[in-house]
Parts: sequence; structure tokens; C-alpha cells
Amino acid sequence: MNKHVNIKNLIVDKPLKLDCGQTINNFSLAYETYGSLNEKKDNAILVFHALTGDQFVSGINPITKKDGWWSYAVGSGKAINTDKYFVICANVIGGCMGSLGPSNTNSDTNKIYGTTFPIITINDMVNAQFNLLDFFKIEKLFAVTGGSMGGMQVLQFVSNFPDKAKVAIPIASTSSHSAQNIAFNELGRQSIMADANWLGGDYSNQNKNPDKGLSVARMAAHITYLSKNGLQEKFGRKLQERDDLKFSFDADFQIESYLRHQGSVFVDRFDANSYLYITRAMDYFDLTKEYGGSLSKAFKKTKTKFLIISFTSDWLYPTSENKEIVIALNAIGADVAFVEIESDKGHDSFLLNVPDFLNTLKNYINNTYLTI
Amino acid sequence: MNKHVNIKNLIVDKPLKLDCGQTINNFSLAYETYGSLNEKKDNAILVFHALTGDQFVSGINPITKKDGWWSYAVGSGKAINTDKYFVICANVIGGCMGSLGPSNTNSDTNKIYGTTFPIITINDMVNAQFNLLDFFKIEKLFAVTGGSMGGMQVLQFVSNFPDKAKVAIPIASTSSHSAQNIAFNELGRQSIMADANWLGGDYSNQNKNPDKGLSVARMAAHITYLSKNGLQEKFGRKLQERDDLKFSFDADFQIESYLRHQGSVFVDRFDANSYLYITRAMDYFDLTKEYGGSLSKAFKKTKTKFLIISFTSDWLYPTSENKEIVIALNAIGADVAFVEIESDKGHDSFLLNVPDFLNTLKNYINNTYLTI
Repeated sequence: MNKHVNIKNLIVDKPLKLDCGQTINNFSLAYETYGSLNEKKDNAILVFHALTGDQFVSGINPITKKDGWWSYAVGSGKAINTDKYFVICANVIGGCMGSLGPSNTNSDTNKIYGTTFPIITINDMVNAQFNLLDFFKIEKLFAVTGGSMGGMQVLQFVSNFPDKAKVAIPIASTSSHSAQNIAFNELGRQSIMADANWLGGDYSNQNKNPDKGLSVARMAAHITYLSKNGLQEKFGRKLQERDDLKFSFDADFQIESYLRHQGSVFVDRFDANSYLYITRAMDYFDLTKEYGGSLSKAFKKTKTKFLIISFTSDWLYPTSENKEIVIALNAIGADVAFVEIESDKGHDSFLLNVPDFLNTLKNYINNTYLTI
Repeated sequence: MNKHVNIKNLIVDKPLKLDCGQTINNFSLAYETYGSLNEKKDNAILVFHALTGDQFVSGINPITKKDGWWSYAVGSGKAINTDKYFVICANVIGGCMGSLGPSNTNSDTNKIYGTTFPIITINDMVNAQFNLLDFFKIEKLFAVTGGSMGGMQVLQFVSNFPDKAKVAIPIASTSSHSAQNIAFNELGRQSIMADANWLGGDYSNQNKNPDKGLSVARMAAHITYLSKNGLQEKFGRKLQERDDLKFSFDADFQIESYLRHQGSVFVDRFDANSYLYITRAMDYFDLTKEYGGSLSKAFKKTKTKFLIISFTSDWLYPTSENKEIVIALNAIGADVAFVEIESDKGHDSFLLNVPDFLNTLKNYINNTYLTI
């Protein structure tokens, strides 16, 4: 898939001990940067991507030829202004955009890993990406930020490295995956595994692809990214290029075509096993448990300044879960700001053109950079 | 599946003109009754079942050997007291518990219908079941009731037959399927159709079964029947018979085992094509559109007394949608009561032991029966 595209790869030759007990040696971390690192090296922002994101934050994604996933927020003159800041983003390990993942070949067997790849966690992802600081010789990041699973990585990063980021901005995220979150991810995994072409995860070695299962998994997830009201306003019961019901199982309604389309374009850019591994990492994420039931303890040495952002219509990682992070940080007297942005665009609000959100992000970042 | 069980069947020899334009002749309607019809024939309650329900409302379901789907509400001394009332329930056409549906053999071809079965609507279901009144020689039902898709049938019945029910109690329902409702149903259909054993709907003729796809469809639907908080309280992040994470794709969390179980038991009792047809009927349901955009007009001749019931944590058919029915009925001065029941059990509340709900139902029915 990535054959003709120049993907920047950092080859990490330090061993990475994974939470599952296995150790990875010599792994590649695919990354992209935007803007320039200044001489003082104090203007770097590490962005973490969400489940189906990648390192191509802004501009045109060279693989999909579409806008980078955070083009509304990151770029010249934007909320995260690449004229001022040096933005780094890496593909998570377990992913399929160049970093070590289940679609890579295992050099020991000369076969594609598939489900022989070790289970990875959010902690593993963050520890892998920490190598970027060494590579760029950055002593301290100005900021770490990201939405959804990106926000989980923000929290994990600050917990693991309390003096390595001045500012942390987790957006539309959670400190612990809820039962409903796990349920939707498990639904996606079961959909992939139900596909006759999944072949126990060995599909690539057998030249097959569980496209249908992956497509259904994406459809399920996509519904959770949008709000009920947002869907109703955008689609309602509008029919797809027809005047009346067709009395068939074709896509009569626009919402049906839209979901089918989301599913079918997704399979062109994403690996089914990566979907299994990354959703598993999200489900395993529970920073509270990691610290014996006290989320405050996860941040006890922190000097980081936090901004927590949630969206009113996000039912996947609702405001209540974002507030739990705020409460835990306040309990230890951390520097924490919180804002709930009014939006009917659901969880996807952090990816979209939501002016109140983008203005908040921009002003917070710029003002903090001047004073910190 | 139904071989060794005595299922009551009403063979309707009147033609039934379907909304899709086709006409069905000589179709069978499988039904069950509870209690006795009194001499005045004024104590009959027609219950409509939901998507995956059937005619076995109460007692032990002879097919599944489990409690009937509405055993909490219907039975001797219960909210719908079968010592007093004569309860009738029929399997919807399109279903798979004895009424004409896609798993039946088409006598013209001697093959199982599969997707050659005509698309049916809620209106078709209700018109088919109206034949039960003739059969039992009931001039006027005391009540029609049902939850979810059962509630849609209640609304359609009263609209079609304004003088045939004294009381109508649609529960946790809607007058028009929303974009999110359609999205979740489409997800289920795509999951079934993605199964390599679905074979364009012809699986029964080829001795296959799209069990995996149907199971994933059920898992998806099941998540929507429960509330986020309810899931969190019941399952949270509890592990399934283990002390710690297993770092695999096995069901580590109880919520995962629970969903897998729900999927696997469902395929033993339900036909995949019936799932397609019934979800399609729900998606096509739009009583408002049927009456030129005015829901009030659907009920303009009604003399029926309405009780609309919703549940606080039902996000599939939320209170706001139930209230739209109340508003439409009030706008024409109909006799309408409305109650929102506090429950954390989500959409499934109408099937479960929710005392406030069951007491409301019981008292409303008993008091109304005395005074109407």
C-alpha cells in the first residue's frame, strides 16, 4: 500500500518492553512533522492520533490523497499554527501506516505477523513514541495533544513522563474505557473475525482480505462518532436519489448510502488486524486501575498545565468522563482548565470545523506559549 | 425449527394487499392467546411484539423453552392480568415463528422465499393481524399495546382502525424511525449480508446459515437496547473468570462474553432474512409522512384513549420522540396520558422488572377497564 510514498521512518534500536511481557527490538516508527523546530527547541507539539488516524495530520495525506485528519486544527495560521510551532505526529505501533504492526513481516518467520503480533497497549504506544524526543533532541515538549484515543495517549504520556510536556490537551477522551466503549469495539472485532476471509488473522499470507467484516466494523464505529440529533439534522429520512421508497434492500435512505460509503472507503486505507489490535489497546486502557483506583495518583508528580475539552453531544466519551479527569487533577492542585464545547456533531466534533473549539484551542495554546 | 411444537395458525383466505404493491393470498398468521374472552367480548387486549419477539408473550416459550418475552407484564395477577383479560398476540408477517415470512416455502416455486419474499411494512403487519378480530368475533378490542416496534404497530392500528380499540398503549416507541435508528438497522443488515453463507438470501435452499453475520447484527442491536450507565453499573470493566488481562482477543471482559452469548443464542431462534425484512419495515415506518407531515392527522377520527410511556435512559426511542406523539394527540384534543418512567435499563426497560412501569400499566388498564 505504501510502496510509492516516502514515509519518514525512525528506526528505534532500543528494546521496547511491552505490557504483555514481550520485548520488541529494532522497530520502526513512521512519523511526519509540520513547521520548524526553533533554536531553543521549545516550540514542539506532539500530536497523538485516534483509532483510525495516522501521522498525516495536516495537508494532503499522501496515501489517501485526502486532507489530513486534523487539517481544521493544524496548519499555517490555524489553531495549532505550524508557522509558530513544530508539530510531530507518529503512527502508533500496531497501526498500518508504516509503524511496526500486524501487517508487517516478522523477520524471524518471513511471514506477515497477523495475530501473532503481540497485544499492545496505550502505554506501549506512548513509550514507543517517546523515542521521538531523543531523535529530535527535544528536552521538553511545549505540548502534547490529541482527541479520542489521542487523548488517552496524552494522559498516559503525562503520567509516564511528568516533566516532558509543559502543556497537555486531551480532547473528547477518557481515563478508562467504559463498558459501552468496550462493547462497540468488541462488536467491530467480532464483525472482522466473522468474515470468512479473516482466516484467523492470516489473510495477508493467503492473499485474502476481510473487507466486508472491516467495512461493517467501520459502519458501527461511525454511528458512535455522530450524535443522534446531528444525524437527524443531516440525514433525517431523506431518500437517496429517488422520489419514493424502493421496497428493496438497496440503500433507500441517504444515511444508508453514507454508511456504506464510509465502510467501503475505509477498507482501502486500513488493515483489519490493526483494527483489532488498536481497539484492544483502547479497551485495555484504564489509567485509574494502573494507579490502584486513584486517577489523581497517575498525575501526582505533574508540573504540566492541562486543558480538558469535551463536546456536549459526544456520547462515546461524554463530558461526564472528561470531568472525571478534571476532578482528579483538581484533587492534587494541578493547573487544569476545562471547557465543554456546544456542538451537535458528536464525538467527531474534534475533527471538524467547530469554531468555538478551534478558537479555544488556538487562544489557549498561543497565550500559554507566551507565559509558560 | 417448529416441527414438534403445536403452533396455533390462523389461515387467512382473504387477499392482503401489501404496501409494496404485491398481494398475498392464503397466508398463515401464527398466534397465541392467554386468559379467556368473556361473554361480552369486551376484555380482549391485542399485544404487538417487537423486532425479535413472537406470539409467546407469557409463560414458557415452547420453542426456546425460556420465559415468554413479556412475562414480567403479562400473566395471572400481573400488570396485564390474564385472569381478567384475554390477551392475543400474533407473530408478525415477515417473522419466523409460524406467520408467513421469508423462511417459508413459496408454493409457486417449491423453494424457500429468502429475499424473493415481498418487502413488508408496519402497515402490512397490522392489516394482517386485523383478521384476528374477525376470527375471534371481537367487535372492539379493549386495548392494543406493545413496546418498541410493538408500539409502532399500536399507532398504526389506531390510525387504520380508529374505532376498533378503546385504549392504546404504545411503549418506548416512535412515530417515525430516526436516522440513527435506520443506521443501526442498516448496520445489522450489512452484517448479515456480509456473511459468506448468506448467499444473496438463498442460504436455506443451499443448507447454509449466515450465523456469524446474524450474531454480529444481534450484538449491535443489543448494545442499543441498554443504557451507557446501565452497562457501566452491570459490567463496568469486570473481567470474565480471570484475575487479570490475558493480552489476547479472547473475551477478557464480562461485557464481551455477554455480547457474544447474546449473539450466539439468538441465531438458534431467529431467521437472518426475517431480521432483514422486519428491520426494513421499521425503517420504512413514518406515520407522519403517511399523513402529509402531520402526525395529528393520523389520529383525527380517533375515539381511543391513549397512554404513552417512555423511559429516561432509552436512547433508541427517547422520551423526546414519545412526546411528539403526545403533542400530536393533544393538538386534536384526544384523550392522552403520558408518563416517563425513571429507569437505568435503557430501551429494554419495557421488557424488564421495572416496578414503576409495571404498576403504571396495571393501574391504568384496570381503572380504565372499569370506567370506559
